[in-house]
Amino acid sequence: MTEPDDLLPEGLEDRLPREAATITRAMRACLDVLGSHGYDRVRPPIVEFEKSLAGRMDGVQPRRMFRFVDPVSLRTLALRSDITPQIGRIAATIMANAPRPLRLAYSGETALIKADQLDPARERIQLGAELVGSDSVEAVCEVVSIAVEALHAAGLKGVSVDFTLPDLVDTLSDKALPLAGDARDAVRRELDMKDAGGLKAAGGEAYLPLLYAAGPFDEALAKLKDIDAGGALASRIEGLKAVAARIDGKARITLDPTERHGFEYQSWIGFTLYAEGVRGAVGRGGTYRIRGSEEAATGFSIFVESLASGDIDQPAEDCLYLPLGHDRDAASRLRAIGWRTRAQIGEGEDARALGCTHRLDGKEPVAL
Amino acid sequence: MTEPDDLLPEGLEDRLPREAATITRAMRACLDVLGSHGYDRVRPPIVEFEKSLAGRMDGVQPRRMFRFVDPVSLRTLALRSDITPQIGRIAATIMANAPRPLRLAYSGETALIKADQLDPARERIQLGAELVGSDSVEAVCEVVSIAVEALHAAGLKGVSVDFTLPDLVDTLSDKALPLAGDARDAVRRELDMKDAGGLKAAGGEAYLPLLYAAGPFDEALAKLKDIDAGGALASRIEGLKAVAARIDGKARITLDPTERHGFEYQSWIGFTLYAEGVRGAVGRGGTYRIRGSEEAATGFSIFVESLASGDIDQPAEDCLYLPLGHDRDAASRLRAIGWRTRAQIGEGEDARALGCTHRLDGKEPVAL
Repeated sequence: MTEPDDLLPEGLEDRLPREAATITRAMRACLDVLGSHGYDRVRPPIVEFEKSLAGRMDGVQPRRMFRFVDPVSLRTLALRSDITPQIGRIAATIMANAPRPLRLAYSGETALIKADQLDPARERIQLGAELVGSDSVEAVCEVVSIAVEALHAAGLKGVSVDFTLPDLVDTLSDKALPLAGDARDAVRRELDMKDAGGLKAAGGEAYLPLLYAAGPFDEALAKLKDIDAGGALASRIEGLKAVAARIDGKARITLDPTERHGFEYQSWIGFTLYAEGVRGAVGRGGTYRIRGSEEAATGFSIFVESLASGDIDQPAEDCLYLPLGHDRDAASRLRAIGWRTRAQIGEGEDARALGCTHRLDGKEPVAL
Repeated sequence: MTEPDDLLPEGLEDRLPREAATITRAMRACLDVLGSHGYDRVRPPIVEFEKSLAGRMDGVQPRRMFRFVDPVSLRTLALRSDITPQIGRIAATIMANAPRPLRLAYSGETALIKADQLDPARERIQLGAELVGSDSVEAVCEVVSIAVEALHAAGLKGVSVDFTLPDLVDTLSDKALPLAGDARDAVRRELDMKDAGGLKAAGGEAYLPLLYAAGPFDEALAKLKDIDAGGALASRIEGLKAVAARIDGKARITLDPTERHGFEYQSWIGFTLYAEGVRGAVGRGGTYRIRGSEEAATGFSIFVESLASGDIDQPAEDCLYLPLGHDRDAASRLRAIGWRTRAQIGEGEDARALGCTHRLDGKEPVAL
């Protein structure tokens, strides 16, 4: 027997029965919500041409993917690190002629060659939905409310949504609060760091109030409105209001308009999903354009393993032990109404140790 | 837009909505059957140390796997080509102390660097169950009957099971029909090829009748019994009878006792699953020993994509179009009783083209 430490590469894990059951249950619940809103599941392969995975979306870094040469095509293949670009590829090519809006759902394994500092996992199950053909306020309303509904269906409590406006500096610096070319990047960076001193030094003094327009949604939005004297953000602010109204108390909402980390490639709106008992985000989404086709899209991803770490009530599980020579028809009828069974296959078994709570006696389950 | 031929590497495919839905439905149905019989889902990672994937089971060829060096451990990793060895690893290590028999289920993606001649796919979803701790007749009875039940649950018709006795030549040549060392391999090979002439030339004339002990189960078994003058196969024959009795008319059964292709590493019994309308096998299984721990096990795998190619009745699917400003509570209640909905998000949408069959009018669906 190998030493446990040596069994699996760092950042890769077995999910054993209890956790695997939670993951499977959460995944099905989420996918059922997406399906009920008309999102059709597609299944792209886990391996593709590297170029294709990296070329369909800004922000996908080939260097973070497992790559290898394909002996058949002699081209470089990669194990996907993100499913979203695959959905973009499908929408832009094989389903280019499907009517819009095109609603697609997915769920599957992704892998990273190197974990990031905050999350040691190198493999995770990504589940999500993409509404292809629109990045309108109505599209965002639909996508955000479905994301929240999916998290509730998975059993999570205390769901919250944190909104951001990824192109805020671009929008403001165009007219309202002009910045020289170099200064724009510096201001973005300092806002990201939430560094007031750095922001001043970079010539972004006028942007200082943005740092304080963060927090509970209504107050933060009011502050943002105050800053937006020129009205450059008017449509954004209206959009945010409409999205917040659609969430309608089903999740706590916050606004952090300058947060760009991970949203560098979103267009006008981005959001991060959180839930009680889960360390870090459970998902994220926003509006973007599919590279190549330049089609607008709105979508979200959920990190399924993180769902399973949340504060989910586990159903108590009965299991029925079937002794050798038991009544097979009775067992089959009991399974049909939801019993799990475990059949005896030899002598010396301990039904309780095998996780059984009941035993089939004639045609009836009796408690062990 | 890229040319379709160039989109994906040879042998790797997107599963689009219709096919993906069939695959998902079939997979859930199969997994639910395994779960109902007490098999607990586990989720090993898709990537592992090559050594670990290749070392746990005879017959797994590292050269058929996508391999790459892990920058973290500096060891060779591989993308799994088969999930069974991972279940063996889990059973032999992290779950070594779980009570036996240990029932584990799995489902997930596997990939091959090179397809085989008969099947051009380089990626497939493998789903299965392993009963760890026993390779007894009772264990085989359970595993085979669950495999048949799973295929029925997935909607397949005309299911059949073809049994083989992988160690037949070893058993017979030990006493009943002795063979010199070299001749044993040659006889095995010629039986595999079903080559009567070759068999004689290899000194295996006494094995000739085995070639004719194949076909519908009862006749083939009777012939096998006739050949087995010395009774060396008596326990095998009794075992086969018991397994056949357990299938109890739920699948057509055949016997091809000398078939070894793909069963080189099974112990006393192997089986292949077929179904109407599916080209090639839908699954296979048998008894084996987990390398390293040498623990006996019985299991089967189903190739999920092949299920979806079978002759499955597709449920007709209604979908409800929700016009802008629709009654959200009504829509939500209709989803709760099973309706799929697609909400309007902008002007100029064609509800029918979007796959909708009905439209929400006030609180009621009306046909389009």
